[in-house]
Amino acid sequence: MHQVICTVDVVLLTLEDNALKVALLKRDREPFKGVAALPGGFIHPDEDADIQDAALRVLREKTAIEPPYLEQLATFSGPARDPRGWSVSVVYYALVPFDVIDKAGHQDVKLANVDKPLNLPFDHRTIIDTAVARLRSKSQYSSLPCYLAGDAFTLPQLQRIYEALMGESLNKVSFRRKMTEMDMLEPVEGEFAGGAHRPAQLYRLKPELRDRLTLIERGL
Amino acid sequence: MHQVICTVDVVLLTLEDNALKVALLKRDREPFKGVAALPGGFIHPDEDADIQDAALRVLREKTAIEPPYLEQLATFSGPARDPRGWSVSVVYYALVPFDVIDKAGHQDVKLANVDKPLNLPFDHRTIIDTAVARLRSKSQYSSLPCYLAGDAFTLPQLQRIYEALMGESLNKVSFRRKMTEMDMLEPVEGEFAGGAHRPAQLYRLKPELRDRLTLIERGL
Repeated sequence: MHQVICTVDVVLLTLEDNALKVALLKRDREPFKGVAALPGGFIHPDEDADIQDAALRVLREKTAIEPPYLEQLATFSGPARDPRGWSVSVVYYALVPFDVIDKAGHQDVKLANVDKPLNLPFDHRTIIDTAVARLRSKSQYSSLPCYLAGDAFTLPQLQRIYEALMGESLNKVSFRRKMTEMDMLEPVEGEFAGGAHRPAQLYRLKPELRDRLTLIERGL
Repeated sequence: MHQVICTVDVVLLTLEDNALKVALLKRDREPFKGVAALPGGFIHPDEDADIQDAALRVLREKTAIEPPYLEQLATFSGPARDPRGWSVSVVYYALVPFDVIDKAGHQDVKLANVDKPLNLPFDHRTIIDTAVARLRSKSQYSSLPCYLAGDAFTLPQLQRIYEALMGESLNKVSFRRKMTEMDMLEPVEGEFAGGAHRPAQLYRLKPELRDRLTLIERGL
């Protein structure tokens, strides 16, 4: 038989203090037992409906987090990436607001800045770089960053998230015009953030848009 | 063990008479022996450097074609897509000029119009639809269609390829301006196509751009 090892790995990304971070977990078994790595595992044919379902199960079991956004990133493969043998890893990336990770409170989950050197097993550094490149590229022309913003946010908060992902300052007027053009946000009735003198309206993604990306015509 | 079947499948796309077609091959073994399907096969851990290498080997062995463009599409999975059991198929899509397929002359390769109903095994219809959607979407803002044009082509020929993929007529002047902006083509010295009175210059992709896509700022 043509035996290959088939696993799923998840790049769980969040913004903490405007820095993009990835969730790492100490591995509980060999190879690389005790080393921080991406959450991952084998497919369980008796319970997983497909690999996306396996990715969600791995996150639930290992981090207690249900991500608001999960997308297949790519599949990584070869004879050398896993010391156990020729392997295939189907990789998903998840976007999760920092508050959700904080509330889940899983003590084994550590957040690491993706722009810092990380000593990681397998090809996890390459996988993380691929996920970050995808996120940063898609942030320029879609609603993707909203999934890092939580259930409700002000427009200045959302602009700071876009800026953190794109690595550049955006003009406030044109940012707001783009958000209006995309028609993806709705005000949360009666909800305001900030001080008594200059309260800021809270917004959320329109319910019908929570499960699919909205694209920005011509980018930000 | 968590046993799953892991295969690779390839969606080989070409344009014949301005219609987008997919290469199908009669399966030489069960399941679905004798039924037309996407070329595919198992990973050979002793000879494949990674899954992309496996995809190239499958194409070489089954169609005698080396595609000028090959990209990972997505990975499809689940308990029901293959009657042999829970399976994972890593899928690539390839773009090949019609002339290359014609010259390879493999008698088992049949081209089928992707926009017509096809009676296909596994989830191959879904896989083809996913590949076609990716190609059509990327055609709007990249050099991707050039890989269907062959080694040398006139600008009117290239425009017809873009139009066939995008499903709409393009303005000749703005198409040529976009091609100039992208700076990806070079004239083939002394090579012209067409009649003696109005010969058209032949172009090719610049050598340094043959292995990577060029993106069109703001799309076509």
